[in-house]
Amino acid sequence: MTGRSLRLGPGGEFDRLRAIFATLGAAGRDLGDDCALLPVGGRTLAISLDLSLEGVHFRTDWLSFREIGWRATAAALSDLAADGATPLGVLVSLGVPGNRQRRLGNASTAVQIMAGVGAAARSVGASVLGGDLARASRCLVDVCALGVAQRPVRRGGARPGDGLWVTGRLGGAGLALAALRGGRRLTPVLRRRFAHPVPRIAAGRWLARRGARAMIDISDGLAGDAGHLAAASGVGIAIELERVPRWPGVTPLAAAQSGEEYELLVAMPRSFGTGGGARAFRRATGLPLTRIGACTAGPGLRITDDGRPITPPPGFDHFPPR
Amino acid sequence: MTGRSLRLGPGGEFDRLRAIFATLGAAGRDLGDDCALLPVGGRTLAISLDLSLEGVHFRTDWLSFREIGWRATAAALSDLAADGATPLGVLVSLGVPGNRQRRLGNASTAVQIMAGVGAAARSVGASVLGGDLARASRCLVDVCALGVAQRPVRRGGARPGDGLWVTGRLGGAGLALAALRGGRRLTPVLRRRFAHPVPRIAAGRWLARRGARAMIDISDGLAGDAGHLAAASGVGIAIELERVPRWPGVTPLAAAQSGEEYELLVAMPRSFGTGGGARAFRRATGLPLTRIGACTAGPGLRITDDGRPITPPPGFDHFPPR
Repeated sequence: MTGRSLRLGPGGEFDRLRAIFATLGAAGRDLGDDCALLPVGGRTLAISLDLSLEGVHFRTDWLSFREIGWRATAAALSDLAADGATPLGVLVSLGVPGNRQRRLGNASTAVQIMAGVGAAARSVGASVLGGDLARASRCLVDVCALGVAQRPVRRGGARPGDGLWVTGRLGGAGLALAALRGGRRLTPVLRRRFAHPVPRIAAGRWLARRGARAMIDISDGLAGDAGHLAAASGVGIAIELERVPRWPGVTPLAAAQSGEEYELLVAMPRSFGTGGGARAFRRATGLPLTRIGACTAGPGLRITDDGRPITPPPGFDHFPPR
Repeated sequence: MTGRSLRLGPGGEFDRLRAIFATLGAAGRDLGDDCALLPVGGRTLAISLDLSLEGVHFRTDWLSFREIGWRATAAALSDLAADGATPLGVLVSLGVPGNRQRRLGNASTAVQIMAGVGAAARSVGASVLGGDLARASRCLVDVCALGVAQRPVRRGGARPGDGLWVTGRLGGAGLALAALRGGRRLTPVLRRRFAHPVPRIAAGRWLARRGARAMIDISDGLAGDAGHLAAASGVGIAIELERVPRWPGVTPLAAAQSGEEYELLVAMPRSFGTGGGARAFRRATGLPLTRIGACTAGPGLRITDDGRPITPPPGFDHFPPR
């Protein structure tokens, strides 16, 4: 699939990316998928770069520096999971304030972030390979995750008739965010879900081996990422909202809008469902896998809740159109 | 050489890195060299991550956004050159202001930076493979450069008796920086040297093939980077300052202190000099290669100017010790 340019969903960030693709011309290839793919020595390297900025992607009064490091690394590793790749290592660029006083001093800021990066990397068998360090006015963590994919799964391979499945349960990240914004304390289990997301590496590899046609991780919200998958594959997607597995206390619509979930949305051939695929997945990974809809011939995203049509909620977008 | 931890030179940034290495324990390997090395499918991948921040590494009133993109990419590619690697591709994380008005609008900021990134990548036969984009209070460009190295050259392989050589001429970057700080216009040739550095890819590959023992790119200044090479190799280094090839109007000491030169400093076996190596290098690359000193058995950096000892000037350090 290398070398194929991808159609992107709507949104200000994607308009901007389209203009960048046009500027790059022949030098830019395969932009817009979760990972870049690079053939090296007969294998396929999957590479993801994921930028986390203070005040945009995280707040230092909501998360410890160790959690900030873990979360930034998990986000990059989640992109590898969505390609069905096995992580090898990460590199990290850190920006930390040079003058502003931190609770534990400036030196410890970088050390604590890197402790979280190292723990997240170790949790999936990867090494910290290198990186860069600079003084910055606000914290930033940019994580490059590298892995190998035996059979890379992209966003663009779904076909009409494929079943649409999701790992885990959705809405926990959105629930945590709402509580933090309202100044409420998180329960330990919700805090863990928000601060310590687990990249679905084993799940992504299992699904790739079992013939996944297209896969994406849910970072922009289920509705937004389903739109990306539909646009890249040139198919329609129909989601039955009442089927979406949800965190307790989350409405179906909130579950479809919740970003930074880091679960996988995957199109599987129809035979996967009739062949007991979800039970085998649960035995292998310990996670639920739920069929929430299907890929269709017509274009666009169609969402229903108990049969009633719902207007697709917008995905998370750092650059809302003006 | 993979898996070897490196001794680092003195300086606040390096004290900080040492604490980070200690935190990472087994997960961190090979940190501190120009590139990380990763064996993939029987080949050796060289990876560099290089962070450029507005107000720290560049100013938007000194450089166009296209030049900012070129320079950030050249810096990451220069690390590949120092390992003797052949570039394959780059990934780029961009932060651009979402609200602040730019001369040509916000959309064009990212597009112009990426035009510079794409041009620098194409200049060495590499592709833009992917990246990330976010709203940031100030511009940032983090470039991950990937290449393959047939015979990777690290900082730590120099031996006593090796000749110490440098490519090109030093001091142009420092001269440009002083002029910009003083509000003076740059001559076109000096502006090109500063805004459009050429990563020494062909030079690095040639030197690696010809048996380079240790190599580093001059980003912290000749004196600083010679100190890093000496510390990593466990050798001493003697530099004869009067031999250092200089940009017109640059003193020997200024040439030794000038950072962001992106030339290569390389330890070659003694036989290289007697075998007419520099002439062959010039024929192959069009660049001068000058012997400026030697590696010695005793530790530390010894700099002389026409025989008089000079106190080594400090290298460029984003985190001066407090």
